[in-house]
Amino acid sequence: MAAIASIVLAAGHGTRMRSEKPKVLHEIGHLPMVGHCLRTARALGADRLGVVIGAGGDRVKAALGKLDPDAQIAVQDPPRGTGDAVTAAMPVLDGFEGVVVVLYGDTPLLRVETLERLVAEIDGGAAMAVLGFEAEEPGPYGRLITDEKDNLLRIVEAKEATPEELAVRLCNSGVIAVRTDALREFLPKITNDNAKGEYYLTDLVGLIGGAGHKLAFVRGSEDEVLGVNNRAELAEAERLFQQRRREELMLAGVTMQDPQTVYLAWDTEIGNDCVIGQNVVFGPGVKLEPGVTVKPFSHLEGTVMRSGSAAGPFARLREGTDVGANARIGNFVETKKSVLGEGVKAGHLTYLGDATIGAGTNIGAGTITCNYDGFGKHKTVVGENAFIGSNTMLVAPVTIGKGAFTGSGSVITKDVSDDALAVGRGKQFEKAGWAASFRRKHGDT
Amino acid sequence: MAAIASIVLAAGHGTRMRSEKPKVLHEIGHLPMVGHCLRTARALGADRLGVVIGAGGDRVKAALGKLDPDAQIAVQDPPRGTGDAVTAAMPVLDGFEGVVVVLYGDTPLLRVETLERLVAEIDGGAAMAVLGFEAEEPGPYGRLITDEKDNLLRIVEAKEATPEELAVRLCNSGVIAVRTDALREFLPKITNDNAKGEYYLTDLVGLIGGAGHKLAFVRGSEDEVLGVNNRAELAEAERLFQQRRREELMLAGVTMQDPQTVYLAWDTEIGNDCVIGQNVVFGPGVKLEPGVTVKPFSHLEGTVMRSGSAAGPFARLREGTDVGANARIGNFVETKKSVLGEGVKAGHLTYLGDATIGAGTNIGAGTITCNYDGFGKHKTVVGENAFIGSNTMLVAPVTIGKGAFTGSGSVITKDVSDDALAVGRGKQFEKAGWAASFRRKHGDT
Amino acid sequence: MAAIASIVLAAGHGTRMRSEKPKVLHEIGHLPMVGHCLRTARALGADRLGVVIGAGGDRVKAALGKLDPDAQIAVQDPPRGTGDAVTAAMPVLDGFEGVVVVLYGDTPLLRVETLERLVAEIDGGAAMAVLGFEAEEPGPYGRLITDEKDNLLRIVEAKEATPEELAVRLCNSGVIAVRTDALREFLPKITNDNAKGEYYLTDLVGLIGGAGHKLAFVRGSEDEVLGVNNRAELAEAERLFQQRRREELMLAGVTMQDPQTVYLAWDTEIGNDCVIGQNVVFGPGVKLEPGVTVKPFSHLEGTVMRSGSAAGPFARLREGTDVGANARIGNFVETKKSVLGEGVKAGHLTYLGDATIGAGTNIGAGTITCNYDGFGKHKTVVGENAFIGSNTMLVAPVTIGKGAFTGSGSVITKDVSDDALAVGRGKQFEKAGWAASFRRKHGDT
Repeated sequence: MAAIASIVLAAGHGTRMRSEKPKVLHEIGHLPMVGHCLRTARALGADRLGVVIGAGGDRVKAALGKLDPDAQIAVQDPPRGTGDAVTAAMPVLDGFEGVVVVLYGDTPLLRVETLERLVAEIDGGAAMAVLGFEAEEPGPYGRLITDEKDNLLRIVEAKEATPEELAVRLCNSGVIAVRTDALREFLPKITNDNAKGEYYLTDLVGLIGGAGHKLAFVRGSEDEVLGVNNRAELAEAERLFQQRRREELMLAGVTMQDPQTVYLAWDTEIGNDCVIGQNVVFGPGVKLEPGVTVKPFSHLEGTVMRSGSAAGPFARLREGTDVGANARIGNFVETKKSVLGEGVKAGHLTYLGDATIGAGTNIGAGTITCNYDGFGKHKTVVGENAFIGSNTMLVAPVTIGKGAFTGSGSVITKDVSDDALAVGRGKQFEKAGWAASFRRKHGDT
Repeated sequence: MAAIASIVLAAGHGTRMRSEKPKVLHEIGHLPMVGHCLRTARALGADRLGVVIGAGGDRVKAALGKLDPDAQIAVQDPPRGTGDAVTAAMPVLDGFEGVVVVLYGDTPLLRVETLERLVAEIDGGAAMAVLGFEAEEPGPYGRLITDEKDNLLRIVEAKEATPEELAVRLCNSGVIAVRTDALREFLPKITNDNAKGEYYLTDLVGLIGGAGHKLAFVRGSEDEVLGVNNRAELAEAERLFQQRRREELMLAGVTMQDPQTVYLAWDTEIGNDCVIGQNVVFGPGVKLEPGVTVKPFSHLEGTVMRSGSAAGPFARLREGTDVGANARIGNFVETKKSVLGEGVKAGHLTYLGDATIGAGTNIGAGTITCNYDGFGKHKTVVGENAFIGSNTMLVAPVTIGKGAFTGSGSVITKDVSDDALAVGRGKQFEKAGWAASFRRKHGDT
Repeated sequence: MAAIASIVLAAGHGTRMRSEKPKVLHEIGHLPMVGHCLRTARALGADRLGVVIGAGGDRVKAALGKLDPDAQIAVQDPPRGTGDAVTAAMPVLDGFEGVVVVLYGDTPLLRVETLERLVAEIDGGAAMAVLGFEAEEPGPYGRLITDEKDNLLRIVEAKEATPEELAVRLCNSGVIAVRTDALREFLPKITNDNAKGEYYLTDLVGLIGGAGHKLAFVRGSEDEVLGVNNRAELAEAERLFQQRRREELMLAGVTMQDPQTVYLAWDTEIGNDCVIGQNVVFGPGVKLEPGVTVKPFSHLEGTVMRSGSAAGPFARLREGTDVGANARIGNFVETKKSVLGEGVKAGHLTYLGDATIGAGTNIGAGTITCNYDGFGKHKTVVGENAFIGSNTMLVAPVTIGKGAFTGSGSVITKDVSDDALAVGRGKQFEKAGWAASFRRKHGDT
């Protein structure tokens, strides 16, 4: 198989997004759209990767540095069409021989398998292969004109199409694979002799085919070539992404009580026999081992849950949470940068931040790790089999010994020894009849 | 353009709603259905507005007084058909000359643009114009019979239609625009000579057309003429309303991670580049400035969020909340009648009611403004750049000075000076070995 | 009408579920699929009920003991087809004469009305009646071949069907009703002379019809015969179940602001004029009297809510909760095994467990019943018209008298008298300038 390089076109700002943020940085499954393209290109086996950004593309450049530091950046300025954009990226291909796959930063849903079929056409002898799709409403798309033997003859723009050509539903996605030699020879021959004065990458088809080289095409689904131009299309792409990932997880043995309401991130991992309730949101970085239960109305990110553990309803597990095997996180509980040992229970109205909780410990309702003093964050350590009474304030840095108890409503500022009881609260006293008198004062007799 | 008046028919109780509440008061987007009609009529430019209610329509009358105090109320008693209902409303039109648009209190989704087209037909010379729609399943609807030049000839009821007429999919919505002179002349000529003994407004078509006046019709969408007769149809109308508003906001530059789960009220305002997570409910009276983030599982009503601020997940912002620029409201936090300055943080498990929080202040986890003493509500004022320790009870009325700190777990009943530390809690002590002994007592060795 | 018995086939483990749990125990509306079948059979009037389980079906057996203790269990070992499974269950029918209805443990959505039509065919003279359905995509299903008078002639497997037969969309659901005499006579005549070497119950059609007995069939909907073989189909069955129940409740007078987001259990009861907000999850055992409001993001199980009461948003009502008439449960509030009297208010950030709260009492924000001491659960009793101050810890067992108050932030360990005020907290003191000095120490001047 030929070596693969990929050029990702990501120069457009995307006016119809009506956003300060460049279009390709809008996210699908918590990953910028252009990040999906980069991951797809890498999964396809692209060793060399060029991304074309526009003038003022600093935000995109900064994001690319994190998404794929090895990707090379080319700048297209001014924007003069897709052909011109690829021209701007040609230095990225210096010394490279093989297949170049051109992708689009606003088309995040392409399947690797589809691109593999595209590249296979080059391996099979074509100089260039175009990804087509059967459009539900072909309207404005360019049409792939083929002969009866399914050879690609040319691409015709909708505006210049005859009625018969308009009746064709096989449309041009813009995604192509092309041999480097053909690309180097014909890209410079594209002209801007058209209404908009732009250089269209599509013209390669005519040039390469016209020179007698073999052209090929492959059919993708309309869903995977969806391009995002406004927020409604962004929402639609998100929906398609979610649908695909949910289906994959369910078929692998995950129960979702209403899959439509389970929101996955691009990197969510869920083991088999996990049960995911309705309305669960996964931010990035979550891994659930097999047999985990997440109850409705839960929000997880940057979290590992180990086998047999359960969270929710109304649990919020934030980055750096590690929930031990068979542990239980209940309602209105938030965790952050906290490691909970096996069998820990934190059932109600609790905040555990920067904490380590030993196995078997019970965290009472209303417990708060007071981890922030206005300047720094401090750690709380609770030993195994301890019992933290309801509404205990653990003023960090603080350590609670193994098997220790704290009394309800205590503010714990000093370390507590193993097996001790620590209490810090006022003493109860009673004013007899006070309430009756208070009510009389307010005219409530 | 002719002056416009509108008559809204709202007399039916709606037995199939199976409700104590009159049908037209059931809500769509937190506004009673009849309120949507009134707003549509006003947006169309109706200066004069009559609403026909039935006997015992006191609840509707009371609601109308709030929804549109200038609307005039007419009572139809007993109910004898739509023609009779309009007759009951004729006094509302005393001295008025122009176009009368007849609407229905259980048909809340009509677009103003559609009605403008209807009125334009009158301006263009028609004596009466009927709103039609292409029905997916025309079944029981009256059919609009037109000639090949698209002139409206007559309306035929489904029961009396020939097979050819039944094949017509253009149906009668019941919504009409009619010149006052034609209405005054022909309304009294409608008879109740039919199976049900009712006066049908539809008969105007035959009477006015039969007298040689010009009839017109306009096509609306089936969605906008949806009438609500039971709770399933109410849910469907709500769905259509939500879909329309979500689409409008997304195209204006709002990101919705799953638009199907963002619930808007009739008056929700959201600026561009706001990001709305999954499962966000907007009650009435919410305004988000540009660049606001609302994370999943949030519930807002009567709230302003200023630029760059963020709330959620699991935030509940109630009436009278004003979240300052770049402020952060975290999980399991409730606010009510509270003004939060720029950059305020209230991250966890907090209730802020009747409070003013100065810019830059940090509200610790578990903070509660104790605003209610069983009789009255009292105010809490916190100065700028203060630090409220976790689980502080702010017993209102109380003032915390600028830059002041409160210790975790304190009950603050007296004002705190600027830059001071206030503490009110018990002192920690320890009983060594108590927990071990307690466990032994319970047989757990 | 003939006496009815039912045989439920529940022997398959369901490999494609990719689960430790046997397939028929996966739940729809919080009831195992086989439980739906048992309920349907009982609702149809089946006095005698046999369930066929496989070798190692201990988990199914244990579940059946709870779901329907009177059901008799038969074991099929090894699995040799549906005919063989029914053979295994024949001892259940000893001495029984009437109609036997064969159901499938992975087909949970059958309507009783449909089965009644099936049984009626036997009452009308047929020896056997088959439940068919018009398949959207008939592909692999057996086809019901009928004559022009709608008599069932035979069932043909898809693999053995002619092109004309394949064009038939009326398919075999596998569900049958059969007279005991015909079953006893012909079941033993089924052979395993086929590719898989299994005994197919479907062969009864040919045997009984071939002997000259009358065959009948009934049309069901494709939805109700949906069989579940993987998690995606499980989710689809759940969706269909939810849709059916929501529709029934709405037509009975329940408002659902977005029915798609209201999740019902098999036994959920909701009275008319209840209003259910978006995103409400009902676990098993919930009953709402008429006129109850459940606001968005609420999670209920094992709970009764009485007329005029309201809960949410973000309320979590657990097993054993009884919310009194006109009571109000607010946000981030959890209740468990607690009885709340008429008009009780618990508005914010509260946990009420093992508690009895008297009518008219106000529970302040942050109140927690400390019901667990590490070993046992204890009870809290609050009298009528009491006022529990914010952040009160009620350390159970404890009793608060009628009309008593507790001060904010109090830890109440001893009983409080009627009309008294009880306080247990530290005294406030102030360190002037401490905060300014603390900030200086951290270099923040």
